[in-house]
Amino acid sequence: MTLSFTKMQGLGNDFVVIDGVRQAIELTPERVRFLAHRRLGVGCDQVLLVEPPADPARAAFRYRIFNADGGEVEQCGNGARCFAVFVRDQGLTDQTLIPVETAGGLIRLQVEDNGQVTVNMGRPRFEPAEIPFEAPAVAPSYPLEVGGGSVEIGAVSMGNPHAVVRVEDVLKAPVESLGPIIESHPRFPRRVNAGFMEVLARDHVRLRVFERGAGETQACGTGACAAVVSGRTRGWLDERVAVDLPGGRLVIQWQGCEDAPVFMTGPATSVFTGNIKL
Amino acid sequence: MTLSFTKMQGLGNDFVVIDGVRQAIELTPERVRFLAHRRLGVGCDQVLLVEPPADPARAAFRYRIFNADGGEVEQCGNGARCFAVFVRDQGLTDQTLIPVETAGGLIRLQVEDNGQVTVNMGRPRFEPAEIPFEAPAVAPSYPLEVGGGSVEIGAVSMGNPHAVVRVEDVLKAPVESLGPIIESHPRFPRRVNAGFMEVLARDHVRLRVFERGAGETQACGTGACAAVVSGRTRGWLDERVAVDLPGGRLVIQWQGCEDAPVFMTGPATSVFTGNIKL
Repeated sequence: MTLSFTKMQGLGNDFVVIDGVRQAIELTPERVRFLAHRRLGVGCDQVLLVEPPADPARAAFRYRIFNADGGEVEQCGNGARCFAVFVRDQGLTDQTLIPVETAGGLIRLQVEDNGQVTVNMGRPRFEPAEIPFEAPAVAPSYPLEVGGGSVEIGAVSMGNPHAVVRVEDVLKAPVESLGPIIESHPRFPRRVNAGFMEVLARDHVRLRVFERGAGETQACGTGACAAVVSGRTRGWLDERVAVDLPGGRLVIQWQGCEDAPVFMTGPATSVFTGNIKL
Repeated sequence: MTLSFTKMQGLGNDFVVIDGVRQAIELTPERVRFLAHRRLGVGCDQVLLVEPPADPARAAFRYRIFNADGGEVEQCGNGARCFAVFVRDQGLTDQTLIPVETAGGLIRLQVEDNGQVTVNMGRPRFEPAEIPFEAPAVAPSYPLEVGGGSVEIGAVSMGNPHAVVRVEDVLKAPVESLGPIIESHPRFPRRVNAGFMEVLARDHVRLRVFERGAGETQACGTGACAAVVSGRTRGWLDERVAVDLPGGRLVIQWQGCEDAPVFMTGPATSVFTGNIKL
């Protein structure tokens, strides 16, 4: 069969996006691995498959995410933005508020007037046991012993664990040296993503993230959420904050109470369209 | 403008191939860098541009090669095979012997009955000064001092310098440890590509190449030529030899005299077609 696809990217995180509404496609793990291979296939971080919803009364689409190794996963903030732009560019919907079924539950995507997309990233969790993080009680920040010294971290879960360190200058931050030490610190039994945040103003930060198992990345969506949540909890930030990552800018909004979800707004770009024989 | 392209690969070396005969295209360095970018563009090792020949009496096409950094280069064996398959697949020619103008001079590409392509890789050079290699005279092999011990190497230029070491088992060969030492050995003033060859039979070898400035690669075409030339000079191989590289198989032919060119035969595969806005 010949498959039509669109290659997209959001802050350098890249995706092969497939219209499974108008194309009959069986996406085996072997096919995903082939599509994701950067030399032998198309090349991407993840393959996104748009399907009809199981329950058309609740959602307009079903949206599935496959890692480059062929396994299906639950959520990806950068991918969700690309999905929303894709279904509108393809004429699959003309709505700006798009309810979508995912393996992680129903999500609502909002396409803004400027073409950027806002994703509800869920509510932050602070209970140490939920992160998981070894600490006697919830606190805005915690001293963490690292290599003879100590750094002050915020600890937040956005579905995955984050430690947030404030730095004076993000370009000089010890991401490569301190990142791996925090990532594998024994107080984070499932390891942790380490964010290094420079506060420029109450509505503007710069951030670099050392991702668990991946090293420093261009743009970690949950890391941006966690940094803003931690910075707001620690009294440094307002409700709406621009986060400059190496790959580009995300805007994070959080009302500041534990029950409020975190909203992430950012760009999604169609790079090219293609046809490939499977 | 919207550009049509074909993504191709030969033994894992990958290319964005552009029909500049039927499309008007100005390929600036910025556009090449964008096309070659694996996350923000299409992604490839090199961009290949097919153009009408300057002299239609001598050649059917002009063929230009751009590295991912935007610079134009002279030759690429894996790219030449992809070029030949491309012009036939696109219906730009129905010939099987295709004369082509390149920045490195006129080359003739032969499309075989099985769809593989044979490229004339030029004649090997053995004079130490031409490699360049510090040695008093030409010899089939030379002892090279490395880290307290000595390895026996063949030294050949295929337009670029190669040192060839015979090993018992290519999978256990010390490519990662010995490769960098040979690459930067002071007797090779412009450094050298280091090949590790296991001879399975007089017509069959296995090869891994530590490329100058790049580390171990999937399939080095000039390295395969140099290994067979060196192995034949040292009396181990016949005229036609199958070379199994990590990325796949090349067949190398060399008559054995210094004036004879080396012919390389191998596969080229179209992966997908695409359209991108520039």
